[in-house]
Amino acid sequence: MTLQHIVESQQFTVPLLMEFFKRTEDMRKIVRRGGTRDFESKILASLFYKPSTRTRFSFEAAMHRLGGRVISTEEATEFSSEIEGGTLEDTIRIISNFCDAIVLRHNQEGGAKRAAEVSSVPIINAGDGTGGQHPTQALLDLYTIYNECNKLDGLSVALIGALDYGRTARSLAYLLSKFDRTKLYFIAPEEMQIKPDILEHLDENGVVYELLSNPEKIIANVDVVYQTRIDHSRLQSKNIELTHYNIDANVLKRMKSDAIIMHPLPRSVEIDPAVDSDPRAAYFRQARNGLLVRMALLTMLFDQDY
Amino acid sequence: MTLQHIVESQQFTVPLLMEFFKRTEDMRKIVRRGGTRDFESKILASLFYKPSTRTRFSFEAAMHRLGGRVISTEEATEFSSEIEGGTLEDTIRIISNFCDAIVLRHNQEGGAKRAAEVSSVPIINAGDGTGGQHPTQALLDLYTIYNECNKLDGLSVALIGALDYGRTARSLAYLLSKFDRTKLYFIAPEEMQIKPDILEHLDENGVVYELLSNPEKIIANVDVVYQTRIDHSRLQSKNIELTHYNIDANVLKRMKSDAIIMHPLPRSVEIDPAVDSDPRAAYFRQARNGLLVRMALLTMLFDQDY
Amino acid sequence: MTLQHIVESQQFTVPLLMEFFKRTEDMRKIVRRGGTRDFESKILASLFYKPSTRTRFSFEAAMHRLGGRVISTEEATEFSSEIEGGTLEDTIRIISNFCDAIVLRHNQEGGAKRAAEVSSVPIINAGDGTGGQHPTQALLDLYTIYNECNKLDGLSVALIGALDYGRTARSLAYLLSKFDRTKLYFIAPEEMQIKPDILEHLDENGVVYELLSNPEKIIANVDVVYQTRIDHSRLQSKNIELTHYNIDANVLKRMKSDAIIMHPLPRSVEIDPAVDSDPRAAYFRQARNGLLVRMALLTMLFDQDY
Repeated sequence: MTLQHIVESQQFTVPLLMEFFKRTEDMRKIVRRGGTRDFESKILASLFYKPSTRTRFSFEAAMHRLGGRVISTEEATEFSSEIEGGTLEDTIRIISNFCDAIVLRHNQEGGAKRAAEVSSVPIINAGDGTGGQHPTQALLDLYTIYNECNKLDGLSVALIGALDYGRTARSLAYLLSKFDRTKLYFIAPEEMQIKPDILEHLDENGVVYELLSNPEKIIANVDVVYQTRIDHSRLQSKNIELTHYNIDANVLKRMKSDAIIMHPLPRSVEIDPAVDSDPRAAYFRQARNGLLVRMALLTMLFDQDY
Repeated sequence: MTLQHIVESQQFTVPLLMEFFKRTEDMRKIVRRGGTRDFESKILASLFYKPSTRTRFSFEAAMHRLGGRVISTEEATEFSSEIEGGTLEDTIRIISNFCDAIVLRHNQEGGAKRAAEVSSVPIINAGDGTGGQHPTQALLDLYTIYNECNKLDGLSVALIGALDYGRTARSLAYLLSKFDRTKLYFIAPEEMQIKPDILEHLDENGVVYELLSNPEKIIANVDVVYQTRIDHSRLQSKNIELTHYNIDANVLKRMKSDAIIMHPLPRSVEIDPAVDSDPRAAYFRQARNGLLVRMALLTMLFDQDY
Repeated sequence: MTLQHIVESQQFTVPLLMEFFKRTEDMRKIVRRGGTRDFESKILASLFYKPSTRTRFSFEAAMHRLGGRVISTEEATEFSSEIEGGTLEDTIRIISNFCDAIVLRHNQEGGAKRAAEVSSVPIINAGDGTGGQHPTQALLDLYTIYNECNKLDGLSVALIGALDYGRTARSLAYLLSKFDRTKLYFIAPEEMQIKPDILEHLDENGVVYELLSNPEKIIANVDVVYQTRIDHSRLQSKNIELTHYNIDANVLKRMKSDAIIMHPLPRSVEIDPAVDSDPRAAYFRQARNGLLVRMALLTMLFDQDY
């Protein structure tokens, strides 16, 4: 099972996810051994129209750990004027001559798809627009749950924060709907609740969910708390208190001893640094998985077995 | 025959061009085999005072395909304030200690020459100022004609667009003047015609040319259409219609079946995307040659035979 | 003797400095042989919140000459908004998962120390804030004196320029205080003299020094002239003439035949380019040492013997 491009989470069927998990585990061993030289003659191009150092570094480090080479833009400002003229396509046609894969962060929804249509090498979507996709983040979130909880069926997951614009929460809800007996709790101020399209998708797939304005009722029962960014000033402008939408020692006390807390990072006020030392705080392990997940995806794109 | 620096097109004699063509062909084979490791211990520094992702990527990919290493600036903003003080020279003196060659894009005409005078390693001019040189683009254009037409003597070439500021058209006219029985047609609105210095040079070298305001008369006879950028708003401000200065299906119909269309890219309105699928559209092959040409030039600078 | 992090000059005891000098000499031989492949599986992350191409290039070239790999930010603008929230720590926690060492230029004093407290890999301070440290520059200055003068005891050193904000002059004074019979002359306009904290430190360590407003009296006797940047417009606003605070042919004439002139570069008006060709002009050799010094420090951080 191989991949031609990575454009959106929807590409990933359950068998493909299983293959991906297996490869991610393999990468853990490979990193422990100091990486491989297998992709010594391969070049990855990082084409970022907007800077995102962490995402870019995780892809570039992944390529290096596999022995590969990287050419990189931190911010492809040169191109900003061209986007109007539709020349993302020309840029990709040209750059795909110089490399073996392109990691693209574009500032328009659908940019990665457009790139994939003309590229002669695999395109990896590293985020396209606010309303767009960031599939490798979604895969890393799912892998982290799998790795921490040792299963993906029968999980109770609370998603907390400003869920209306929460790309990561939306993608995770989508991916979790593929597994059996998933229960999802969406916890947000009413005006920031997750949008109906996701709920429709969950209904179609028979996933049980609840919309809540605070986590009181369910926090003691969930296996995963997926905390997302919440803009404090947005809360204040609506006179909403942060209390229900962040994690601190009080929340920790009520959680199950084997539950985990995740966050796509960077965090702001949503997680008290005092939580960091609790073994249930999985967000730094989650960030570390970013390297392994991107290595695994590169091996799938380059169709190299491990 | 080796090179110390690559500063301007004028350095390239016909024998040197032939050597360069041969090496570019060799690079095609080397890329097909997955590159070499020969420059494993060499470092190329990309020093770009203005961003140009495509040019930079083609040099950096060329270095990687030869097994080399790259240190890179996307936009050397730090230096912008120093240019006044004449410290381009000091910067080059320092950076040439850290690497084995420098690719320089500078924002002042003559920057590359100044750099070459103080550098302890080869300087490659990747463009210096609007009125300056960009010799590796000119070489890539000439190689593409050679590769597509299998000859450089006796060619009829139409150069179309805003030729007054057309650095690439000017350089190509210059290089083509070195070959026998070249015929050049400069096709531009009167106020944007090629400047007299180039025409004087052609006269001195006995090259036949014509200045035309539209391609009607000659389009059916030329071997190469070298289309360059034309600023649509500049045309509109002068009430000039685009019609004569762009390529579309109608122009294609009238061209010879073995003629080619070139463009330095990125393009704007000058070439209708419908032209892309015609085998005579050579501009993406031209862009691809950029990799091979830069590899060949690096092997000449490092004096490494193939 | 190994190093965990390089945060400030004060870490370096005399025995550690001697070890560092020895390794720097070893690196000279290694560079002459074309570098090593020893760090082939190691990744250095350059995390620069403010651009500094020369410093960044010297670290990245050092890593490449040791066979290593680099991931790099030219200007981590993305993070600028996060600094408020204290998330330098989170950024370092995340990025240290992707690499084997981090070179950090931060815009706040103390940034490197904060990074070292949470990083899982070595942190190298490449400058933190105007009032902060830049220890590898200080080490490179000290090594250059050692290499040029073949000793560090009994040296007379003149430090010239705007010494009040002169980070490099301050650090060098500090390091020289560790050696026997050092004599220091601080030459600056009264309002730009070195700050009392350094003088107190010298008093405590029994170092002989003098504060002077011009070099007349001592220029013929010193072994080292350490010239630093001086802002010409700042001088002019105070009606101070540049004459006493720059190096030209007249100053050269009065210096000892075996004295040296150093400068952290880039220079402005402080050194007349006519001085460059004098063998006593050591500033370009000093810049070149930057590569060797950073290679040596990397070998110490990675605990690799040579």
